[in-house]
Amino acid sequence: MPVTRLPAAPNSASAGPGIRTDYEVHFRGALDKLHGERRYRVFADIERIAGRFPAATWRRADGSTREITVWCSNDYLGMGQHPEVVGAMTDTAKRCGVGAGGTRNIAGNNSPLVDLERELADLHGKEAGLVFTSGYVSNQAGISTIAKLIPNCLILSDAYNHNSMIEGVRHSGCEKRIFRHNDLAHLEELLIEAGDRPKLIVFESVYSMDGDVAPIGKICDLADRYGAMTYLDEVHAVGLYGERGAGIAERDGVMHRVDVIEGTLAKGFGCVGGYITASSAICDAVRSFAPGFIFTTALPPAVAAAARASVRYLKHSKSEREAHQRQAARTKAALDAAGLPVLATTTHIVPVMVGDAELCKAAADHLLECHGIYIQPINYPTVPRGTERLRITPSPFHDEAQIQKLTAALAETWDSLDLPRAGTVFVEAAE
Amino acid sequence: MPVTRLPAAPNSASAGPGIRTDYEVHFRGALDKLHGERRYRVFADIERIAGRFPAATWRRADGSTREITVWCSNDYLGMGQHPEVVGAMTDTAKRCGVGAGGTRNIAGNNSPLVDLERELADLHGKEAGLVFTSGYVSNQAGISTIAKLIPNCLILSDAYNHNSMIEGVRHSGCEKRIFRHNDLAHLEELLIEAGDRPKLIVFESVYSMDGDVAPIGKICDLADRYGAMTYLDEVHAVGLYGERGAGIAERDGVMHRVDVIEGTLAKGFGCVGGYITASSAICDAVRSFAPGFIFTTALPPAVAAAARASVRYLKHSKSEREAHQRQAARTKAALDAAGLPVLATTTHIVPVMVGDAELCKAAADHLLECHGIYIQPINYPTVPRGTERLRITPSPFHDEAQIQKLTAALAETWDSLDLPRAGTVFVEAAE
Repeated sequence: MPVTRLPAAPNSASAGPGIRTDYEVHFRGALDKLHGERRYRVFADIERIAGRFPAATWRRADGSTREITVWCSNDYLGMGQHPEVVGAMTDTAKRCGVGAGGTRNIAGNNSPLVDLERELADLHGKEAGLVFTSGYVSNQAGISTIAKLIPNCLILSDAYNHNSMIEGVRHSGCEKRIFRHNDLAHLEELLIEAGDRPKLIVFESVYSMDGDVAPIGKICDLADRYGAMTYLDEVHAVGLYGERGAGIAERDGVMHRVDVIEGTLAKGFGCVGGYITASSAICDAVRSFAPGFIFTTALPPAVAAAARASVRYLKHSKSEREAHQRQAARTKAALDAAGLPVLATTTHIVPVMVGDAELCKAAADHLLECHGIYIQPINYPTVPRGTERLRITPSPFHDEAQIQKLTAALAETWDSLDLPRAGTVFVEAAE
Repeated sequence: MPVTRLPAAPNSASAGPGIRTDYEVHFRGALDKLHGERRYRVFADIERIAGRFPAATWRRADGSTREITVWCSNDYLGMGQHPEVVGAMTDTAKRCGVGAGGTRNIAGNNSPLVDLERELADLHGKEAGLVFTSGYVSNQAGISTIAKLIPNCLILSDAYNHNSMIEGVRHSGCEKRIFRHNDLAHLEELLIEAGDRPKLIVFESVYSMDGDVAPIGKICDLADRYGAMTYLDEVHAVGLYGERGAGIAERDGVMHRVDVIEGTLAKGFGCVGGYITASSAICDAVRSFAPGFIFTTALPPAVAAAARASVRYLKHSKSEREAHQRQAARTKAALDAAGLPVLATTTHIVPVMVGDAELCKAAADHLLECHGIYIQPINYPTVPRGTERLRITPSPFHDEAQIQKLTAALAETWDSLDLPRAGTVFVEAAE
């Protein structure tokens, strides 16, 4: 008694695309506008070479290839190629298969993922951890769900927060106030103004485009004084800072004072996925109420195992962090000595300013074509207009010879395109 | 001349958790409410066994383990354990490392991912494909971005659409009308009411909880007649239906009539990630304007390679699809013959109705504890209250002996807990 009943294929001969194709004009128009503003983005098609980081194979549109050096990866420590990390992925894929096979609730809650969450809770000294498919989703779902569960919550959000945090704030539906970037006086003003109502301060530790750092301890002081809860994004710091790689809050000795620490598995840890760590009640509530967590397939066991291997490794090994800081400092010093307009930062991020979208893209194209050096141009809306830049991310694997080659290539490019030198003032254009 | 400047660790001795811990009460309260409504979800901690699908190891809270049979996986064809798929993941991880190392724009655009997008465009007969980190994000970002780019767009959305589509509709900020599930007359009424303005119809092919199918061709007829654009979610159909596994629209011969086809790599294809396929202009516009695409790390090359291997394989091999339909039909027939309340479906999804949250969970717990059979209870909000169910998903690897064992276990559970039999009418409770 088969129950399956397949409907007959309907006659589609009458279908005409006539009216529907009119919609194309809107999409083409939007793209034409991007081209006109020199904001249309072209993605470089690359294949990284495990064991030879930062080398990669660049594939041109015509299919021809060339070996290049990547200078803009967010796999900051090259952990994506670490033998223990790759080994954990391949072993687990062989043992458990590729996908998780379902949402966390429906058949997808795999043991490597459960173990990873324990590892992350331990890393940040919190009661619990909760893993998402990406850092983007962890902020979007985490912030919106946490804020929604607090009646009458006011969100205080740093002006430079990442798009994923802004989306989380928006989706919460809560009232929000934006405080000037890293401006404690402005934050305090807004906290006082808010009075007794519940308040959530959301901010980052390392801001990825300028490479500057939040005064986490002082923000926690204000949170204590005015009774606010704190949500800290450490995506550009986890694996990279602190005794065990838990980030800037660990380095500064204030990790226990932050209520929610959000991180990524895709940058310092070299894999993919995002997470929050917090009290058991907070993680359990987000687990139970966030649609972006509930209704999505779990991270594959092979990815979870790789991420856990990376987190565990970096808890015990400091040499990558030390080499990372050393090579970043050397890169900054070399570029600075060559008179290039390096933005002064206290972190591993090395922005070299250009200040014009078209020139920024031209510089990146020139570096790739003429020098085999890949640094993606960073234009609006990732940074404000007028502050377009090349964002350089040295790793422990960028050696002295490569730093010298980079410096020479940038100097030649700056000469060749007559780009602004050190000392130039870059001003954000008004929107 | 090192530029790096590490701030001194601030004194955190004055920090008191006094005020902040008050926030915990909100999260605990929300969880208590879930417990009270018997809606608190417990995730089964399992590890699937590659090569022995649907077998898995279940890990209890005390750490003890037991081998179980998974009957609720959305890895519908068991492709997650296919040697070509696992091999593509392990080979690529060894060659390229684990993570992508960046967003699509910044160093993360890996060649296996570019190749996967071409493969998907070919699968659906579209000009282009665009891959996201999940099917959830592809709907959320895809629908909202497409609708936003169409001035004055009205969205017509099926009442049973998945949460990710509802979020996409919400985030678009566009006006919306909900049409009754698969109700062509109601859809036509709303299309007429809308008049000349731009319209986007968003709907699914296979609805995952009831297992019923949309009249895609007839919806396209209406779209043509009233000048609407169409967006079809085929996540529970890709890999499973059609000559090359492109889904229900392919099976029905209407694939070319749908403007945007969205799919997942995490179910029929056994991996993780989601995608849209459409015209080049649509994909390029979403690529260029969707924050959830732009600001997130790219899918790892190893995952992309595994997904591509799965898509390619299922384009040419029909035996998995045939075995899948056969075993699903046999499972339905066996459960039906045993007097169990199987919801009649025309697809591979086999819902067995319970109609009560607590009994549904009790049945699932009993099956796992006493029979080693894992079927997650499906309760509100995934399905309406009063229609709680066990959702069974037979695969090509669930053999006759397993079907008989399942039938006997369900019959025993139904007796033991005195659950409703075939013929019972299940009514959605009013909210």
